[in-house]
Amino acid sequence: TKAARVCLAARGDPVLDFGLRRAQGLDGGVSASRAAYIGGCAGTSNVLAGKLFGIPVRGTHAHSWVMAFDDELQAFDGFAEAMPQNGILLVDTYDTREGLKHAVAAARRFREKGHRLLAVRLDSGDLDYWSRTARRTLDEAGLTDVKIVASGDLDEYRIDALKRAEAPIDLWGVGTRLATAYDEPALPGVYKLAAIETEQGAMRPCWKLSQQVEKRSPPGVVEVVRAYVDGRARADILYAPHVEARPAGPWYDFQGLPLSFSLEDEENSLKTAEPRLVPLFSRADDAQAGEHEATGLHTVPEAEAVVRARKRAQEELARLPEACLRIRDPQPFPVIVSHKTRQAWSALWNDSAEEPS
Amino acid sequence: TKAARVCLAARGDPVLDFGLRRAQGLDGGVSASRAAYIGGCAGTSNVLAGKLFGIPVRGTHAHSWVMAFDDELQAFDGFAEAMPQNGILLVDTYDTREGLKHAVAAARRFREKGHRLLAVRLDSGDLDYWSRTARRTLDEAGLTDVKIVASGDLDEYRIDALKRAEAPIDLWGVGTRLATAYDEPALPGVYKLAAIETEQGAMRPCWKLSQQVEKRSPPGVVEVVRAYVDGRARADILYAPHVEARPAGPWYDFQGLPLSFSLEDEENSLKTAEPRLVPLFSRADDAQAGEHEATGLHTVPEAEAVVRARKRAQEELARLPEACLRIRDPQPFPVIVSHKTRQAWSALWNDSAEEPS
Repeated sequence: TKAARVCLAARGDPVLDFGLRRAQGLDGGVSASRAAYIGGCAGTSNVLAGKLFGIPVRGTHAHSWVMAFDDELQAFDGFAEAMPQNGILLVDTYDTREGLKHAVAAARRFREKGHRLLAVRLDSGDLDYWSRTARRTLDEAGLTDVKIVASGDLDEYRIDALKRAEAPIDLWGVGTRLATAYDEPALPGVYKLAAIETEQGAMRPCWKLSQQVEKRSPPGVVEVVRAYVDGRARADILYAPHVEARPAGPWYDFQGLPLSFSLEDEENSLKTAEPRLVPLFSRADDAQAGEHEATGLHTVPEAEAVVRARKRAQEELARLPEACLRIRDPQPFPVIVSHKTRQAWSALWNDSAEEPS
Repeated sequence: TKAARVCLAARGDPVLDFGLRRAQGLDGGVSASRAAYIGGCAGTSNVLAGKLFGIPVRGTHAHSWVMAFDDELQAFDGFAEAMPQNGILLVDTYDTREGLKHAVAAARRFREKGHRLLAVRLDSGDLDYWSRTARRTLDEAGLTDVKIVASGDLDEYRIDALKRAEAPIDLWGVGTRLATAYDEPALPGVYKLAAIETEQGAMRPCWKLSQQVEKRSPPGVVEVVRAYVDGRARADILYAPHVEARPAGPWYDFQGLPLSFSLEDEENSLKTAEPRLVPLFSRADDAQAGEHEATGLHTVPEAEAVVRARKRAQEELARLPEACLRIRDPQPFPVIVSHKTRQAWSALWNDSAEEPS
């Protein structure tokens, strides 16, 4: 996901979700914050999402806080007084250099009151330049433990560039490009009818025929397993359970191009292949006492479900091929079709003239 | 809006909102359908939005309807039986040429049962070519009154191109690019504090200073009027009510560049200028009996509010300059600042050194 990619780019630095104000609607903002946390973000500025899903709430004051006071230092002092436990000061409302000086002055007064300045936040300008300036200013004032938060139109590419340049940024606030759909304004999937149940209860395969092979839809009920090589996922393998009980190679990708496995890899990977389809609901007439309990679907509170999903996302990411996790030029994860199943599909496609029989 | 632009491109042909399945969430889908209707769409395939806002519900069957039957003609006959009043057949599930033949056959059986085929729908391929083929096939079968609906990744640019080519399409189904944010994945606005109320109840101006003039924010409370020349909107004029009671020229755009009006135009446009800011809520202590009634804000049912908004949108569109309504290369509508107000702002900006006093 976008959040996972942003967090990968930050290489372990905490990433905070600052997306609410640009998300599409309250509903969209809350789902985006939930997804951001599952994908690896450390906290959110969305208080409602924090409350609903147990996400740590993190944020700083706004520029308007500073503008509401007669001068910046007074605004910083006022913030220290109002929120002594949240000593993060936004220093770029007027002039970042002056803002840093005011933050240093405010930090001393935080200390007098028994609190400490946690961080300064930079939200504009050349973040590489300003983070170095901020680090130097803070260090010279003996504030070596004060951290630097950066924000402002960040995404995984910008974070990656700043990390490569070794800009001294400790926390990342990511908003617009996390909570909205810049990369993919609409999910381009389509659904096709794959099978229809006859009155006798059998599943009759259906498919879309097309001159373009890649537009032909897989007929019938399909299962998916994920094959692993040395603990890393190698491919998802589609197969038709009515054709074969377990899929077997050789392997082809979805366009019919061969995918190479070493013979040993192939054997091992099939031994450890894991099913990817998990039933969420079963027919009412199949529902036995205990069946729903076993899946735990109806008993997990939302906040706990989010923590579980977040944990699972991290585990799955750790098992993905490195080539799929790259920030630039990531490779698509291979989805392939079992040979035997593909042969069965081809027979159906070829047997049908213009319409499925 | 996107819907208004899509409807403009269709030059009066009905446009149907088909966006629900690609919209972001249920909430996003319902708001998109509401906005599409206000912007000029003739109907929606979103049944919930139809129910909530009184939008006419229009749609056709899906490809899966056809695939659920043994053959296409049987599917068309089945649809005629199930939905005799909604005779729109999707003809491109397998082979569009065959689909059109089947539609003609189905149309004859519709007629036998006292109904009629309203339209065929094309959802793939070269819509210019297939609409001509469909028109010819239908006309040759004497079905000259059967209309053609086109859909499939449409937006205002594709509709405009098909209209220019005079493709014989009568209705347009627009989905993904209407209900999602392809053009503008996030609204790029920012908010800045403009004024703060002192304890004495006066409004003290605030502003953001920046080296870049276009990033400076207008200080203080601002009013906006729209000036009209010959019934067409010429510009929105910002002015500060504490500086001048009514704005006066010469006019500058927001970057300070001069905007030309003829002297006569200027005088007339100011006479007919209309306020653009309407209070939606007033302070509780100002609320007099009848005041809220006058605005009607609390008494309009949602469906009626949508109809009003739609009517207003059409009236406002008709008064916009033609250059702003172009599909390709539309000009931005001018937003300008009254000369006197700009002078007052400049004085504030210049008087303040690094921070507002």
